[in-house]
Amino acid sequence: MRVRAASICGTDLHIYHWDRWSASRLHPPLTFGHEFCGVVETVGEGVTRFSPGERVTAEMHVACGHCRPCRAGQPHVCQNVRVLGIDEDGCFAEFVSVPQGNLWKLDPAIPDHYAAIMDPLGNAVHSVLAGPVAGFTVGVTGCGPIGLMSIAVAKACGCSTLFATEISPHRAKLAREMGADVVLNPKETDVVARVRAETEDSGVDVLLEMSGSPGGIRDGLRMLRPGGRASLLGIPSEPVTVDLLNDVIFKGATVQGIYGRRMFETWLQMSALLRDGRLNLEPLFKERLRLGEFAQAFQLLEQGAAGKVLLIPNGAE
Amino acid sequence: MRVRAASICGTDLHIYHWDRWSASRLHPPLTFGHEFCGVVETVGEGVTRFSPGERVTAEMHVACGHCRPCRAGQPHVCQNVRVLGIDEDGCFAEFVSVPQGNLWKLDPAIPDHYAAIMDPLGNAVHSVLAGPVAGFTVGVTGCGPIGLMSIAVAKACGCSTLFATEISPHRAKLAREMGADVVLNPKETDVVARVRAETEDSGVDVLLEMSGSPGGIRDGLRMLRPGGRASLLGIPSEPVTVDLLNDVIFKGATVQGIYGRRMFETWLQMSALLRDGRLNLEPLFKERLRLGEFAQAFQLLEQGAAGKVLLIPNGAE
Amino acid sequence: MRVRAASICGTDLHIYHWDRWSASRLHPPLTFGHEFCGVVETVGEGVTRFSPGERVTAEMHVACGHCRPCRAGQPHVCQNVRVLGIDEDGCFAEFVSVPQGNLWKLDPAIPDHYAAIMDPLGNAVHSVLAGPVAGFTVGVTGCGPIGLMSIAVAKACGCSTLFATEISPHRAKLAREMGADVVLNPKETDVVARVRAETEDSGVDVLLEMSGSPGGIRDGLRMLRPGGRASLLGIPSEPVTVDLLNDVIFKGATVQGIYGRRMFETWLQMSALLRDGRLNLEPLFKERLRLGEFAQAFQLLEQGAAGKVLLIPNGAE
Amino acid sequence: MRVRAASICGTDLHIYHWDRWSASRLHPPLTFGHEFCGVVETVGEGVTRFSPGERVTAEMHVACGHCRPCRAGQPHVCQNVRVLGIDEDGCFAEFVSVPQGNLWKLDPAIPDHYAAIMDPLGNAVHSVLAGPVAGFTVGVTGCGPIGLMSIAVAKACGCSTLFATEISPHRAKLAREMGADVVLNPKETDVVARVRAETEDSGVDVLLEMSGSPGGIRDGLRMLRPGGRASLLGIPSEPVTVDLLNDVIFKGATVQGIYGRRMFETWLQMSALLRDGRLNLEPLFKERLRLGEFAQAFQLLEQGAAGKVLLIPNGAE
Repeated sequence: MRVRAASICGTDLHIYHWDRWSASRLHPPLTFGHEFCGVVETVGEGVTRFSPGERVTAEMHVACGHCRPCRAGQPHVCQNVRVLGIDEDGCFAEFVSVPQGNLWKLDPAIPDHYAAIMDPLGNAVHSVLAGPVAGFTVGVTGCGPIGLMSIAVAKACGCSTLFATEISPHRAKLAREMGADVVLNPKETDVVARVRAETEDSGVDVLLEMSGSPGGIRDGLRMLRPGGRASLLGIPSEPVTVDLLNDVIFKGATVQGIYGRRMFETWLQMSALLRDGRLNLEPLFKERLRLGEFAQAFQLLEQGAAGKVLLIPNGAE
Repeated sequence: MRVRAASICGTDLHIYHWDRWSASRLHPPLTFGHEFCGVVETVGEGVTRFSPGERVTAEMHVACGHCRPCRAGQPHVCQNVRVLGIDEDGCFAEFVSVPQGNLWKLDPAIPDHYAAIMDPLGNAVHSVLAGPVAGFTVGVTGCGPIGLMSIAVAKACGCSTLFATEISPHRAKLAREMGADVVLNPKETDVVARVRAETEDSGVDVLLEMSGSPGGIRDGLRMLRPGGRASLLGIPSEPVTVDLLNDVIFKGATVQGIYGRRMFETWLQMSALLRDGRLNLEPLFKERLRLGEFAQAFQLLEQGAAGKVLLIPNGAE
Repeated sequence: MRVRAASICGTDLHIYHWDRWSASRLHPPLTFGHEFCGVVETVGEGVTRFSPGERVTAEMHVACGHCRPCRAGQPHVCQNVRVLGIDEDGCFAEFVSVPQGNLWKLDPAIPDHYAAIMDPLGNAVHSVLAGPVAGFTVGVTGCGPIGLMSIAVAKACGCSTLFATEISPHRAKLAREMGADVVLNPKETDVVARVRAETEDSGVDVLLEMSGSPGGIRDGLRMLRPGGRASLLGIPSEPVTVDLLNDVIFKGATVQGIYGRRMFETWLQMSALLRDGRLNLEPLFKERLRLGEFAQAFQLLEQGAAGKVLLIPNGAE
Repeated sequence: MRVRAASICGTDLHIYHWDRWSASRLHPPLTFGHEFCGVVETVGEGVTRFSPGERVTAEMHVACGHCRPCRAGQPHVCQNVRVLGIDEDGCFAEFVSVPQGNLWKLDPAIPDHYAAIMDPLGNAVHSVLAGPVAGFTVGVTGCGPIGLMSIAVAKACGCSTLFATEISPHRAKLAREMGADVVLNPKETDVVARVRAETEDSGVDVLLEMSGSPGGIRDGLRMLRPGGRASLLGIPSEPVTVDLLNDVIFKGATVQGIYGRRMFETWLQMSALLRDGRLNLEPLFKERLRLGEFAQAFQLLEQGAAGKVLLIPNGAE
């Protein structure tokens, strides 16, 4: 594929700074980057379903197809997954190569900049639709890009009152723009008490944990109603101490780990939501730079403003 | 009901010792005990479905019927639950009174001593059948009475290789008698490595966490395969530090808190399993004493031997 | 309850004409009618959760609570159900009496005329949310009142392209107003071919069968994709000949019978959708008459125009 | 693969007699047959997971991987499926070629004759485990080979009372040997009345329809309890008239079409059940003939005795 636009993920920041995880997982030289939109440039032998000129994006997790999770219908948690942009060359380049089975043909109604972020949007859709959400109250703890997207997705899918928690005033503002009904700052408000007060002293039906912070996780589980569903996507940097007894066991809660996107149920649902114009993601897009300006792009993201920065390679307009 | 046999739960040990939890929750004078089998002695006004002489047991959690979990079809996690034997008078007595809606008529094929432990057996059945188990490998961490019962239930429901972990040699022996295929001592064996080695380096499909200990919970989650289901029933005495990232999130695991028994799906399934003779629970029964010998009964249980002690009131043979 | 507004159901038309079904099921003298909104006038002994003056509607199916479906968590298909307005006095009157457990407190944001049709709206919500719908294509066969409501509900819950079939031009127009993307007349169009052509030759992910007609059922099942979900709510007047092999078995389809509303999951979801202003049902409301003008009301409905006619008792404004 | 044993399916009888369906679907010359056990003889380029000498069987439905059902996680109802033995060469031969992704490595504990019938056994396992079955009553209408296998599977997975219906005395006897608790002849008994009488006037929780006959389907749906699950696998030869209103809609029943086997959840579960010795299928095996004696084999099956006939090619012992 000739890359038309690539987008930077939080993982890419870790790689850029070559932290401990990166040093242990990646084997340079390697082109990183795993969020993009492009056009098929040329196809290999045996490729029958794509032709040059078609506009595509891709699921960059390549599942093995034969481990137990794969055979159990859960390739998104394949034990032998290879991630393009981490384990093999990715998309921060003019061209990227992806196996046919991982390519996703784009509907003409989906614009390039939305197509370039279908990887993280898929995380959000996967989280929201991992259980029923229509008519249910929702809590979103943490309003980074995926948290923000999950707000838009949950509202588009008929959720009831959506409570978001976020410390940064800028992100809190974005959360409101994405559709959150109530945005709370856990440094200023007892968010659990507030949510309970607005939910018949019960708590939210669904928690989408997007912060990865110990506080966000604990607040989130505490604001969940008995019998509720918690979907955890935020990445904690170390083990977290959880009041399992009161927040999970006595509540009869269901806690789901969310990783990647379901292949390809999530893609089908996400494509429909985008094609139908159900999601306004414009508030998320912060800047559009040339690929050569990557240093500036990473710097922008490090300043902590939620949002997606697009990188446009030479050769793409 | 005239009580024919009552059984002692771990909760009753806490009450007997009047620990902090008991002192804060119970309001004496109160008759405790919530596991029993009895015979209807007399019925109140408005009772239409039971008559004197019928043999019964009871779900001792009385749900309110109108909180959000109750209305959402989850009365087992009712926010306003009153537990007979904790919040109101229970069954360590000659007679116990139970609302009609909580009584459970007993099939003649179910003997008294099995009927007297349907409360904890229901915990086990609820845990095992909270997801698919037939043809799936199962891990049981902790072989107290409910852990032991869950072994019998899982095997009766077609599970594949069942790995149990237990430190006490006596309980380990009971685990084998209940049907465990492999019983491991976590003090002697790297149980996670061993389970992975025997499951194509994947882990168990289903974890039943019955220990409540931090080590049991951590080992359990680590031995779960990606995409697996963990049902947590064991009661941790304090918050637990969990590697959420690797053991839940990246695995795409589903972790369920298990509390009580589903009203009354669990009761229907449990009754069928008992009536059909699918469960051999005999190894669990340790002793049968008169109600007046309660001190001896509690002492026996404190010695840590898993198993159920029955108390027989005067007036019952 | 003092009735503020009642609404006429299709079932009431059968009763009004005293057809064979009515003659066999109802035992006059009886007040019929089961869709209403009212205000608590007085409460009986033992009623603790409602007080005079509260605005309410009701689930008019009174489940027994102890048959096997009830105990299995499915009181909406209770074997011993008594329906107020059919088996006992209903709401075509100034006052109606309902057991406390069946009353539903109304959020102030829900207007009376919407509250008066929560019974059939609940049928629609139950049908739509009997499986996943967000991002999925939907077919609705038959655009009577419940079909029309189900269009609004499905769109509010994030469904993708919604195909409706309807013969009547008036109802077809209403279907578009409720949000259908494509409305097809099966007398003029090969609806199955058309739906397949617009769904990658696959068919809709979800069918909501609302016609009860043999043709609607057959078209609906034929337009369902392999692996799809069909929810049947329309009431066929006699047995229907179905190509089970090609339309159900080889497709691996899931076909659900829909009856009543889930108690009370559906009510929770429906209340949220209404309170949040997610549903515009105005196009459905046809006329508002005094209770004494019932003859005129029934006549209007017999003319076949979809829509709800409200009856306002004396004493209500 | 070098074929060690092949088995004859009902479909093969249709092909053998070259009926209308066969003439329209198959394009000779073609080797038919799709149930077998064999040993890898040689592997093609790109095959990395299998080596000569390994014992295998195969899923003979080759899914396309990119149609909507495939992408939705339902490759068992792939719209573009190619079936080996129907659309391409199958296993009634000394050698058969199968794509790597469809091969299934056999555990040493699974004997050849069981391995040779994993295709139809997979149909049975798919049917039984398409919903909960432990502690539930089950009806099996029709005791051909797959019906008989489903009896063994349901009992191995903890089902409660299992009612089977069958006209042939020989098959009825086999049904009892496979574990059916009650076997009824619908020509002699009112099977619906009888089942209801033994299930608290409710009906079975789960129906496994294995006859494909209009009578079996109708009896089956009528004996299903409200809220029950019906899995239809039997192949009706023409459209069937069903009382949808009373037997599906008012009951709130879930009716599932069952086709093939889930890829590869069913295979995982089935392999575990076989490896663990949970299924005694010996009563099913009728005869073992040389491949050259195929005429005799087909004749045997036409005589209507349920059971599997194995064909052993030359070169296999």
